[in-house]
Amino acid sequence: MNRMSFRPALLCLALLGLNANAALTPEQTATLDKLHQHVSQHTQSYSLVESLTTEVGHRMAGSEGDRKAVAWAMDMMQGLGFDKVWKEPFEVHPWTRGDLSIQISGPYPHTLEGLALGGSVGTDGNTLNAEVVYFPDFAALKDARPGSLDGKIAYVGFRMSRHKDGHGYGEAVGARGAGASVAAEKGAIAFVLRSVGTDNNRHGHTGMMRYQDGVARIPAVAISNPDADLLENQLKRGQPVQLSLNVGAKRHDDQSVTSYNVMGEITGSEFPEQIIALGAHLDSWDVGTGAVDDGLGVGMTISAAHQVASFTGRPKRTIRVILFGAEEVGLLGARAYVAAHKDELANHQMGFEWDFGNGNIYQMTPGVGPMALAHIQDFADYLAKLGISLSARNDAKGQSDMSALGYSGVPAVNFAPDGSDYFDWHHTPNDTLDKVDPEALKFNTSVFSLFTWFAANHPFDFRQ
Amino acid sequence: MNRMSFRPALLCLALLGLNANAALTPEQTATLDKLHQHVSQHTQSYSLVESLTTEVGHRMAGSEGDRKAVAWAMDMMQGLGFDKVWKEPFEVHPWTRGDLSIQISGPYPHTLEGLALGGSVGTDGNTLNAEVVYFPDFAALKDARPGSLDGKIAYVGFRMSRHKDGHGYGEAVGARGAGASVAAEKGAIAFVLRSVGTDNNRHGHTGMMRYQDGVARIPAVAISNPDADLLENQLKRGQPVQLSLNVGAKRHDDQSVTSYNVMGEITGSEFPEQIIALGAHLDSWDVGTGAVDDGLGVGMTISAAHQVASFTGRPKRTIRVILFGAEEVGLLGARAYVAAHKDELANHQMGFEWDFGNGNIYQMTPGVGPMALAHIQDFADYLAKLGISLSARNDAKGQSDMSALGYSGVPAVNFAPDGSDYFDWHHTPNDTLDKVDPEALKFNTSVFSLFTWFAANHPFDFRQ
Repeated sequence: MNRMSFRPALLCLALLGLNANAALTPEQTATLDKLHQHVSQHTQSYSLVESLTTEVGHRMAGSEGDRKAVAWAMDMMQGLGFDKVWKEPFEVHPWTRGDLSIQISGPYPHTLEGLALGGSVGTDGNTLNAEVVYFPDFAALKDARPGSLDGKIAYVGFRMSRHKDGHGYGEAVGARGAGASVAAEKGAIAFVLRSVGTDNNRHGHTGMMRYQDGVARIPAVAISNPDADLLENQLKRGQPVQLSLNVGAKRHDDQSVTSYNVMGEITGSEFPEQIIALGAHLDSWDVGTGAVDDGLGVGMTISAAHQVASFTGRPKRTIRVILFGAEEVGLLGARAYVAAHKDELANHQMGFEWDFGNGNIYQMTPGVGPMALAHIQDFADYLAKLGISLSARNDAKGQSDMSALGYSGVPAVNFAPDGSDYFDWHHTPNDTLDKVDPEALKFNTSVFSLFTWFAANHPFDFRQ
Repeated sequence: MNRMSFRPALLCLALLGLNANAALTPEQTATLDKLHQHVSQHTQSYSLVESLTTEVGHRMAGSEGDRKAVAWAMDMMQGLGFDKVWKEPFEVHPWTRGDLSIQISGPYPHTLEGLALGGSVGTDGNTLNAEVVYFPDFAALKDARPGSLDGKIAYVGFRMSRHKDGHGYGEAVGARGAGASVAAEKGAIAFVLRSVGTDNNRHGHTGMMRYQDGVARIPAVAISNPDADLLENQLKRGQPVQLSLNVGAKRHDDQSVTSYNVMGEITGSEFPEQIIALGAHLDSWDVGTGAVDDGLGVGMTISAAHQVASFTGRPKRTIRVILFGAEEVGLLGARAYVAAHKDELANHQMGFEWDFGNGNIYQMTPGVGPMALAHIQDFADYLAKLGISLSARNDAKGQSDMSALGYSGVPAVNFAPDGSDYFDWHHTPNDTLDKVDPEALKFNTSVFSLFTWFAANHPFDFRQ
């Protein structure tokens, strides 16, 4: 998919005289209106999130919760009458969090709140005690002289900023992923990070980290924003600050556990081989109940697919809900899906995912062929009535898991919500059902059902 | 002090022809203006809170932090040049929190977040496992039939409501204080409470509870609001729900530890025996750093007293800062102060305290004699320029500790802030420096300094 922008593409189509009368018909509009009226008042997606978070709870890849969640998803879609429900295996190396104990041991002792980063090694029952060296951001850590951190604990204090589109995450997350190995290269014995999050609660934000080959593996821990403030206030006093650290985390690289993607399908009546794929990830981190990340997406995709079928009848194309496993630990389920379905990917007409929280959808960004753009514009003209704009870009690849399909050539649409508060709860014990806005969830489920109906019943080629 | 309302009192004074020309003089107004301009731009009170929370941290009565806080307060007031700084001892029975482990063990297992209530017994290393019986509020628990909770865990799910004046606390806190003994009377083996707090973070709200004599002492635990929601969602399914509980808390009723009230004085030039008392409590719970409860009050009172003396010169009356110990565990310091100063209380002309958080002061409520009301009105006319109204009541007894003086006959003034968010952080690990609004703190410190100057330099009798 090239990165042609939307307006030149439309201009191009207009010059070619294509799709000049492509507005939705009154019948199409009437169906969308009825579907919206129905779904936007329906609590099914909330009930699904409530059920998943209450009866399963957290479900980290390879854990007992993961196994329960797979069974829950199979049962749920079978119970709702999906034509076909199945799971596809892949392997994960388990990681266990254990307990974490982290203190400022001097000059002013305090017990801190934090979480080990996913994938981190532990301290094997030992307590490390060492001086902290402060870096304002990841670039400063990278610039540290080799050997300058020998026997020290590296601390990066960069604070993520809050934005509607969540772009502060990209600015902050690099240190989470690679900081431990960079610190170890300079001699550090542990890596501590100000949590990648926008809140000020006493909760660490976990998330995946990776070790670089050939570099010592040191423990990696995120402390809460208030604790990071406290640590920095001690550092500002100019005396050496010591941290002590006992990390119970364990990698189990020699073990392999089977996890699954779970699929549910409503078979198309005219073009059953053509797939409209709605995605979300079924796994979560192990510290909350994964309500926002990504119980919401699980509820929205199951409910949107089910309601389109039950309210508007069997679609022309096949609607496939894909609940990916092991997203949090590196899109393992998505990669497994692409590998397992490589011969079928050309039949995936469209992929779209929900993995960005709670806010009302306000924008749609397509990633489709130039001819298909006019159809997207027609649909977008309808969405405009709901306050949703069409992005001028045409380069969407799909959110999180679905991007593995998008970069493999599957057309995509991204729906953008207001994500201002998403990183308050993301990857923390605070990701629980009470954070779900039932009204926004109804609205967003409706938007997903509208697009599902449109894409599944109007068999133009999204690649063209 | 009778509960005469303000307006009849003023009317009465007007009829008597008293204080008809009692408005502040231009000189008084000019001094207040300059003092306000100075203090409302000064960061001293914030620096004090930062220092206390960073260098001492939490400081539960009888703990190591308590001892550090007493030393900190002595050092700080001596360093600021108070004329006299001293401490007065009293005894506390220590209580230690230990670790808490609480899980829903079935039907859908979850690990919950909570905190033991202050004063609770523990489970002596054992794990209790029993069925939960739900009560929507304390009244429903009281109505339970004796014996109906034999071997069960009583759970009260009442949710505190959010209000500017914090009155939701009074509606909710009864169950915290007395719920365990009421539950034990009906046969319960443990008492679990939805936290008395307005937030939705995964933090329990601790706070003091008390056992009734002659009733079995059972463990008392508050779970976080999101965990309370989860528990209730399981209960709604109609199957028996089991909780398992291991509470490491310990009462040490056979031990006694010395704690202290810390006083700092600026001696009056004309009426040194007459005391204007500014209060706050120095202790905190052991789970945050006690920034809002009540580091704020410590910073405000020290700074207001210091700035009045340094900016306007020695006052006519004595200004006394009283940093009470052991407020959280039952106003022990305040009671000790009243007992130790009973012969001097008649010389306490005025007492006012800060122990209600972060919001801008919007109202002043006096508790003074009918003649003094006219002077309060004069001062209130000045405060009106700052957006602060005068309550129609005249029955203030002083916030928290100071009420022990108020009910012993010391005139009082209460300053009311917007407390809407106070019970989000109150008694939780989240009570940390980042919750302090530096601008509101400057403003409130200025209001305290204005009233301190007014009361200390205008020796009318607040009792008359």
